[in-house]
Amino acid sequence: MCQLLGMNANVPTDVMFSFDGLARRADEHRDGFGIAFFEDKGLRTFVDQHSARESPVAALVRRYPIRSDNVIAHIRKATQGRIALENTHPFVRELWGRYWVFAHNGDLRGFRPRLHAAFRPVGDTDSEHAFCWLMQELAKSHASVPTVDELTLTLRELLPQPAAHGSFNLLLSNGQALWAFCSTKLHVVERAHPFGEATLADDDVSVDFAALTTPDDRIVVVATEPMTCNERWMAMRPGELRAFSRGAPLTVH
Amino acid sequence: MCQLLGMNANVPTDVMFSFDGLARRADEHRDGFGIAFFEDKGLRTFVDQHSARESPVAALVRRYPIRSDNVIAHIRKATQGRIALENTHPFVRELWGRYWVFAHNGDLRGFRPRLHAAFRPVGDTDSEHAFCWLMQELAKSHASVPTVDELTLTLRELLPQPAAHGSFNLLLSNGQALWAFCSTKLHVVERAHPFGEATLADDDVSVDFAALTTPDDRIVVVATEPMTCNERWMAMRPGELRAFSRGAPLTVH
Repeated sequence: MCQLLGMNANVPTDVMFSFDGLARRADEHRDGFGIAFFEDKGLRTFVDQHSARESPVAALVRRYPIRSDNVIAHIRKATQGRIALENTHPFVRELWGRYWVFAHNGDLRGFRPRLHAAFRPVGDTDSEHAFCWLMQELAKSHASVPTVDELTLTLRELLPQPAAHGSFNLLLSNGQALWAFCSTKLHVVERAHPFGEATLADDDVSVDFAALTTPDDRIVVVATEPMTCNERWMAMRPGELRAFSRGAPLTVH
Repeated sequence: MCQLLGMNANVPTDVMFSFDGLARRADEHRDGFGIAFFEDKGLRTFVDQHSARESPVAALVRRYPIRSDNVIAHIRKATQGRIALENTHPFVRELWGRYWVFAHNGDLRGFRPRLHAAFRPVGDTDSEHAFCWLMQELAKSHASVPTVDELTLTLRELLPQPAAHGSFNLLLSNGQALWAFCSTKLHVVERAHPFGEATLADDDVSVDFAALTTPDDRIVVVATEPMTCNERWMAMRPGELRAFSRGAPLTVH
């Protein structure tokens, strides 16, 4: 199964610790990795069709403290689509003058809706097809960039449609917010003052967030599996959509 | 002035030597750099709003032999638009299931055509606005992905329009071909068997291409200024559009 990692923060924060944890899980996920960092509206994306364990690009990301307020990372275990650069998540499109980043964990069967608008897949994965459909439907639903709350309501209507065709855990961001949709498995942890020490679940590596943060910092991390063994990770419910902005969950009715 | 570098080859080729030369020119171009590598339809892009001399991302690109058949690189000297990640070339959009990469050297005045289609700028440069207009007009001109020759003819009609508003040297690629349009300054060199030794114009660095190539390899390099001092660089004419595919120039009537 692929692994997802998302981060949303109220001040630009690096994800070296979490990405290191993710890369340590790359042994069974040899079919590529990708990570996208928003810096305000700007976007920096690193993708490689090689394992995150071996890739020099992954080595750069593990060492380089890129600070970002919205991050989406993905480690791929190919289920549909060849092992190729164009099939490597996250995928990026532009809509309403904003970049949109999407990564998917799961497997969709028979979800190939007609794409009649400006978004077409470059590769041949079910994931990119579903992303193009999602962009098309968002573009139809709003004339220009809506508020984060409006987007959350639209996504809540749209996402169950592909999810009915298999497993569809996903992370989506436009740089303003991070959306997480749980189809089968996704976990969330919120970090805020007072910050403690966290230890990676897969290895004996710890980080003391108190030394790296200020009392005002707020950070949300979303991952397929809990990444640390001494923090309160909450499992999302199947069918649940959550939106995070400025390091905190949003409540939309 | 910004610096452009493009490469088109018939076999995936690294651009470490040329990018090294480009980065050595980065002293007066402190406002960011970017480089995009096609691998077939897939795309790998590195951008940084920091100087190519200092950026760890640029250091990775200089050392890492990414092999590609179409490369576009840009070193930025900001004329319009803030120094920000979203204003850093090259820009990328998807059209007809292909990624399109665009980098511009020059300055457009008063070219702000209405963007009524699916392509909107994320940043605030004249360059990205012109690129979105170009994508919009290409999308209007062809129902689905045309041949490289048809695209060349359409581009020949379109590009003089923005070029009339200032200087508009550009590189464009969709992974199938590399297009170079010269408004004021652009140089081309073709490398083919028998390969010789090339010495960087800005420094005492040489590379023996004969040792790195096979007799069948063909490579075209396009750059603002000649990058080497002992090869036959040809200056393009103002208003000239050239298309390169599989390491050779295409002739389109």
